[in-house]
Amino acid sequence: MRYELYYWPEIQGRGEFVRLALEEAAANYVDVARGKGGTGKTMKLMASAKTPSFAPPFLKAGQVVIGQSANILLYLGSRHGLAPKSEAGRLWIHQIQLTLADLVKEAHDTHHPIASSLYYEDQKPEAKRYAAHFLDERVPKYLGWLDGLVRKSGGPFLTGRKLTYADLSLFQVVSGLRYAFPQAMRAIEKKVPRAVEVHDRVIARPNIENYLNSKRRLAFNEMGIFRRYPELDA
Amino acid sequence: MRYELYYWPEIQGRGEFVRLALEEAAANYVDVARGKGGTGKTMKLMASAKTPSFAPPFLKAGQVVIGQSANILLYLGSRHGLAPKSEAGRLWIHQIQLTLADLVKEAHDTHHPIASSLYYEDQKPEAKRYAAHFLDERVPKYLGWLDGLVRKSGGPFLTGRKLTYADLSLFQVVSGLRYAFPQAMRAIEKKVPRAVEVHDRVIARPNIENYLNSKRRLAFNEMGIFRRYPELDA
Repeated sequence: MRYELYYWPEIQGRGEFVRLALEEAAANYVDVARGKGGTGKTMKLMASAKTPSFAPPFLKAGQVVIGQSANILLYLGSRHGLAPKSEAGRLWIHQIQLTLADLVKEAHDTHHPIASSLYYEDQKPEAKRYAAHFLDERVPKYLGWLDGLVRKSGGPFLTGRKLTYADLSLFQVVSGLRYAFPQAMRAIEKKVPRAVEVHDRVIARPNIENYLNSKRRLAFNEMGIFRRYPELDA
Repeated sequence: MRYELYYWPEIQGRGEFVRLALEEAAANYVDVARGKGGTGKTMKLMASAKTPSFAPPFLKAGQVVIGQSANILLYLGSRHGLAPKSEAGRLWIHQIQLTLADLVKEAHDTHHPIASSLYYEDQKPEAKRYAAHFLDERVPKYLGWLDGLVRKSGGPFLTGRKLTYADLSLFQVVSGLRYAFPQAMRAIEKKVPRAVEVHDRVIARPNIENYLNSKRRLAFNEMGIFRRYPELDA
């Protein structure tokens, strides 16, 4: 079976968490929106599916269409060795993923604190205020929690010796935060060395390295979740 | 086995989505934080658990401690007849729940658009701007999507004839939005009659009715997610 991933063609966004899992697993998949007429196909299936998603990304796996990135990873994890087999283990990885998703939403809101429908330029003062709290309080708290998980598990990954999709997502979050807030992250990273080490170990995996060096990996940009606006990186 | 729910003692908050499922299922549970020394017990287990949560709520089920409200419902759903047995069915209910959780986060941000660590009084102009977009664009979009699910499934519940935990959560969201934004909701509800009907059907369930009339149900208040600040209800 060939998976079909439906997302936006020009950004990493929330689709990237799914792409990283598919790439690490060397799964057979097509990134539909990046092909010819892809956005139209995405909009069409989003409306017509028996299980219509509120928003992309969603994954077609045979006859099943699954939305919400953490939910897609829940589905893929147990199929591709990216999550434990036991129910308790699967729930724990999913819990970590949902917490990472909360962090991702807050990262998005640094440039869109008032409304997604407005331009960044129309909410700049609010963005500046939001980003300051995000970098002072929230990023250290989230990354500190994740760092503590590596310590508690004995590492080198979040939950021990075996890589899971949550590790791949932590890599993406650290990469994104570095892109968006290089100055703030230099200081923050010193306090969460274990979380940063997970990022480094993920980069070194052959399938991920291959992916990151391919054209399939889109660059970070100012349309995605992690955006570099120097005025927000205080 | 007696479930132990750990959350804050004075608000419905995100714990309420779990409470509603436990109540509908007539499950054996204790709301730990509302008992003597409960907040201390909550903080202690949050730090000491083998799977430490980033934040409450979390549920202790035997030796397993599960955090993130949607994840707790994923666990409870299949055990208590509040979700389908098939994997595809369980993923679909979970996807709906995660989308409801996104809406809940946005509802929270109407009074805390800048930072959770600040008082509402310190972010009132931003809150007013945020809430206007939330009520104009986001609530109609979310409730419209949910209304469409009832239509597509044939009803009377979100996914058809059988109640799931997502229906209980939709009840809570409609109740909360009505509490926080009574004026705006009067207009919005006219366009999403099927979603409102799910709310009404949930209220009429004997176990839920019994719960809502008990002291176990906390009242909405201005410490929770759904807060009544008339200046935001435009």
